[in-house]
Amino acid sequence: MMTLPSASEVARHLRIVRSARPLVHCITNTVVQNVTANALLAVGASPAMVDIVGEAGPFARVASGLLVNLGTPSPEQRSAALEATAAAADAGTPWVLDPVAIGALPVRTPLGHRLAAAGPSVIRGNASEIAVLAGLGGGGRGTDADLSVDEAVPAAAALAERTGAVVAVSGAVDAIVAAFRGACRDDDPASVTASAVAAYTIAAQRAAEMAAGPGTFAVALLDELAVLDHDAIEHALASAAVAGATR
Amino acid sequence: MMTLPSASEVARHLRIVRSARPLVHCITNTVVQNVTANALLAVGASPAMVDIVGEAGPFARVASGLLVNLGTPSPEQRSAALEATAAAADAGTPWVLDPVAIGALPVRTPLGHRLAAAGPSVIRGNASEIAVLAGLGGGGRGTDADLSVDEAVPAAAALAERTGAVVAVSGAVDAIVAAFRGACRDDDPASVTASAVAAYTIAAQRAAEMAAGPGTFAVALLDELAVLDHDAIEHALASAAVAGATR
Amino acid sequence: MMTLPSASEVARHLRIVRSARPLVHCITNTVVQNVTANALLAVGASPAMVDIVGEAGPFARVASGLLVNLGTPSPEQRSAALEATAAAADAGTPWVLDPVAIGALPVRTPLGHRLAAAGPSVIRGNASEIAVLAGLGGGGRGTDADLSVDEAVPAAAALAERTGAVVAVSGAVDAIVAAFRGACRDDDPASVTASAVAAYTIAAQRAAEMAAGPGTFAVALLDELAVLDHDAIEHALASAAVAGATR
Repeated sequence: MMTLPSASEVARHLRIVRSARPLVHCITNTVVQNVTANALLAVGASPAMVDIVGEAGPFARVASGLLVNLGTPSPEQRSAALEATAAAADAGTPWVLDPVAIGALPVRTPLGHRLAAAGPSVIRGNASEIAVLAGLGGGGRGTDADLSVDEAVPAAAALAERTGAVVAVSGAVDAIVAAFRGACRDDDPASVTASAVAAYTIAAQRAAEMAAGPGTFAVALLDELAVLDHDAIEHALASAAVAGATR
Repeated sequence: MMTLPSASEVARHLRIVRSARPLVHCITNTVVQNVTANALLAVGASPAMVDIVGEAGPFARVASGLLVNLGTPSPEQRSAALEATAAAADAGTPWVLDPVAIGALPVRTPLGHRLAAAGPSVIRGNASEIAVLAGLGGGGRGTDADLSVDEAVPAAAALAERTGAVVAVSGAVDAIVAAFRGACRDDDPASVTASAVAAYTIAAQRAAEMAAGPGTFAVALLDELAVLDHDAIEHALASAAVAGATR
Repeated sequence: MMTLPSASEVARHLRIVRSARPLVHCITNTVVQNVTANALLAVGASPAMVDIVGEAGPFARVASGLLVNLGTPSPEQRSAALEATAAAADAGTPWVLDPVAIGALPVRTPLGHRLAAAGPSVIRGNASEIAVLAGLGGGGRGTDADLSVDEAVPAAAALAERTGAVVAVSGAVDAIVAAFRGACRDDDPASVTASAVAAYTIAAQRAAEMAAGPGTFAVALLDELAVLDHDAIEHALASAAVAGATR
């Protein structure tokens, strides 16, 4: 219970996002670009996909927040990510790193390490990816190394888990975090990050309650992000607290 | 009121599109490719994304119409756009330029100027982008120039506005214009363009009336594009005329 | 009637897919990546888009199945497809080739021939594309050849047909085939392929019955894929058999 943010804090951060309409610079995978843009619009932010060399740097300087998601890291996106994160660091733009499926995949893994060392404001990953960045898992491999099957299976499982989660359930949560961090720069960073995840999770829970399957869920999620308010947040957090207390 | 096209003209152009099933060649941004393809199918056109060097030119020669949207202009798409528009000009294929977010972004801005000078049939942009093409705004910058924050803010605002509009509301209107212009080559071009925008806007209005939020809106928009007919167009234009007369 | 798979076979293969959760490696076009990923998740598989050089090969070795769809074959995807199919052949990973719009388009056509010769487990194409691979249509052209209008029209028609079908109706059927083949390696390959197509078609039919248009259809298709079970399959196949007997 103690780790849940308060409903009034979440609602206050959400109001700041809707009022500030933060410009969220996204360098993200091609599978989720549309849902990410629509989720950002639904929550009140302004998405912009700027993932080419020569524009990613200048744009990161003026954006409210930046997301770098390594889901489909084409050569152009890899260069753009390095350009954007250097500019974000220089300009003080908060940025979120989502190191999708790093571990044994030989191109994105060294890039993920390099970006993690470049000072992201938030790293959003699953347990496997965080372990890799922490030096507890695989990783650190050269880009020209071949994978054995044994080495690649954990990365494959991680990618499957993340791709699924990304598309169907939590597709845009990394971008929502960037929106909240970009809009609420005067607030406690950890609290703002917790609010972003809570807002997204509550909208997803409400969508799941009314959905007949994954198709209607994705539609309802956008609707719920758009109408989320203090009452809905308070109701959901109170239910979660009760569930925690009686567990 | 005088600028509204007549319902019978819009309905006639829509019937021509559905009968001709124009092949619409799209070089467009990765965020909206799916909704663009689905909107074109819903309105009765045949979409084809052909955005690689070596195919974009030959394909533009046989397509009914061509769309070039600069939303995510990767190096491959930039080369393909130049190849396609040269071929379209040579073969007489009508083409639509959507210069998304040109102004200060240093890669797409000179490309937008070059494409605008190559003779598009329609330029679809917001006020800021049109001002840039008209020489009233920023733009004309070299690709190696860095942006100051002051210079980039207007482009950032324009991109945010357009990305939002593109994804959530008017995502495929540029492609719909290409479909109408490609199918109705024997009609007055300005009238055909007005019909395309009117058809899209009416479908969007009807979708908005029944939507609970942005998720259900996007779904309803495709349904409404598919069932749009003379009665719906006449009803909507009559309502708009009354609103104009009593304003 | 004799060509219909039995309901119990289709249902058995579907249960194997849901139990095994096959990891489906997708190198597919940017228009359908999102719907492909969501359809795979809905049917119980785990999608992963890995379409960059240096990762496509290692990943194809550990994936359950591989899909190569030539809808938007960027240079990076073309190289990744060659890398992945060579690795799949070496590791025994079943793979599906979907040679979208090959025929006269000068880049993808020679690539389609090369991939078809590399031993795909399944080729999924329309009549025109299959004719090209069989040497009965155009094709076999160099990448530097220009197209005449007459030569390109059949490819244009094929692309229009396929793009439409891919996005609106059968977008992910090629990936579903890869999922079934990847999960059911101990069963008769032709029977497993027929089951995959049947499962997808039945879900699509059920979605079409409740849809008001293409927007609601796409949503309902994902829901139906997720809830498809033996009863629904049996009901649909019995109806198809009756329709066949009384035709």
